[in-house]
Amino acid sequence: MPKPTRLEPVPRDTRIRLRDKDANPGKGILRGDDAVHALIPLTSRLAELQSGLYAEGKRALLVVLQGRDAAGKDGTINHVFGPLNPQGCIVTSFKAPSTLELSHDYLWRIHGSVPPRGAIGIFNRSHYEDVLIVRVHKLVPRKVWSRRYEQINDFERMLTENGVVIVKFMLHVSREEQRARLEARLSDPTKNWKFEAGDLKERDLWDDYTEAYEEMLRRCSTKWAPWYVVPADHKSSRDLLIADCLVRTLEAMHPVYPRADPEVLRLAADIK
Amino acid sequence: MPKPTRLEPVPRDTRIRLRDKDANPGKGILRGDDAVHALIPLTSRLAELQSGLYAEGKRALLVVLQGRDAAGKDGTINHVFGPLNPQGCIVTSFKAPSTLELSHDYLWRIHGSVPPRGAIGIFNRSHYEDVLIVRVHKLVPRKVWSRRYEQINDFERMLTENGVVIVKFMLHVSREEQRARLEARLSDPTKNWKFEAGDLKERDLWDDYTEAYEEMLRRCSTKWAPWYVVPADHKSSRDLLIADCLVRTLEAMHPVYPRADPEVLRLAADIK
Repeated sequence: MPKPTRLEPVPRDTRIRLRDKDANPGKGILRGDDAVHALIPLTSRLAELQSGLYAEGKRALLVVLQGRDAAGKDGTINHVFGPLNPQGCIVTSFKAPSTLELSHDYLWRIHGSVPPRGAIGIFNRSHYEDVLIVRVHKLVPRKVWSRRYEQINDFERMLTENGVVIVKFMLHVSREEQRARLEARLSDPTKNWKFEAGDLKERDLWDDYTEAYEEMLRRCSTKWAPWYVVPADHKSSRDLLIADCLVRTLEAMHPVYPRADPEVLRLAADIK
Repeated sequence: MPKPTRLEPVPRDTRIRLRDKDANPGKGILRGDDAVHALIPLTSRLAELQSGLYAEGKRALLVVLQGRDAAGKDGTINHVFGPLNPQGCIVTSFKAPSTLELSHDYLWRIHGSVPPRGAIGIFNRSHYEDVLIVRVHKLVPRKVWSRRYEQINDFERMLTENGVVIVKFMLHVSREEQRARLEARLSDPTKNWKFEAGDLKERDLWDDYTEAYEEMLRRCSTKWAPWYVVPADHKSSRDLLIADCLVRTLEAMHPVYPRADPEVLRLAADIK
């Protein structure tokens, strides 16, 4: 099968078979230390573009990260967004909803965390959990979750029509790599504290999740808010692919610095 | 006068004369590239401590930044907090209050932005504006703002008694350095767009602000939430002094990784 050297959006309404998607990066993609070095100019460029976006103050960028446990959501945030200016870079991690959140519709807490104009927002998990874990564990009836795909598309379209550019990354990790990472985590005392027995049980539901991810990709990769499937078995390649895609996205947005007020520039000649 | 090589908290109820405080770092403090290089291991150590704080999930660190225009608040955030994990590092920039915010007491919006347990929160300006700009421009009567010092101390004590460790940095810049920076900003098209004529007028109120800062430092540098005056005429020295102070603060907190659930560790031997 062809291995693209950069991420391409998932075409809408096309069945994606994750089993056929390689979780290893293609041949043209750098790996290991080469990828780590290649990331540096990309994050510098991202920081430049972020500065323009902030100055312009008219549009926002929303980056959605989804993936199975240990797929690398936290690592991506640290490596790709860590080098940016923390001012104007807002990470929201969606966990199990609180009592207050549950007393609202499922998009309520999401809407409240959409980045303001000028900012980059990163969602570590998102409203897509409402068609993933919620569907797999049957937390609501099929009739309820099956309507959500279109609700989400409509919601996302409204956001993009109001200046929020959306890109969504599904970190695609293989079953073998997940096992290796879970084992490594569990033997690391700086990481194993966050494990709960339930986390390991999710792995038993691998195929149910696969089905839910496939439907999500098929139905919610839209022109206005595309999904990208990121081969995620190699961490540094994953970061590189995502950073490259974000640079292209922000360059296409072409943020422009506003002009200074001429009166202010006149005053400037005269600072005492 | 003595020039300390590290920041010391302002003693409470002691008159501080900012005019006598050197805005240049002391002789023992690195400058220029030397300071830039020395910052790297400090921010790495900060990132380590941040990771422990996040894992522990019991306490938060709140960092308050105040200072005149061009004193370096934005630069400090970028250089000192930029290298941290953006997850768990929350920057809040307080601007002129909105209509909604003005319909509440002045601490309402502040309280809403206090970092949750496990996180580091950075306030770019803060509730102290309510005894600075509000006082200088007489936006409320003296009777109202003069009560705020004790209200703020009480509020901050409540926070610290509930697990929020607070450190406050006043970036102390000289009048000459401020002029140089304002001029440089105004001739930089990536920066001059954010200027408003009013910003330059604040400079004419230099002495009124000095008086307001001095009272703030004298009355609100408490044991539980100390103020540090940071010599800020040299940017890289300023970053170094602040990072050093934060490392000492976080080391004194001594965050501890929680123990893993033994049952989870048992399951780990058996991942399929």
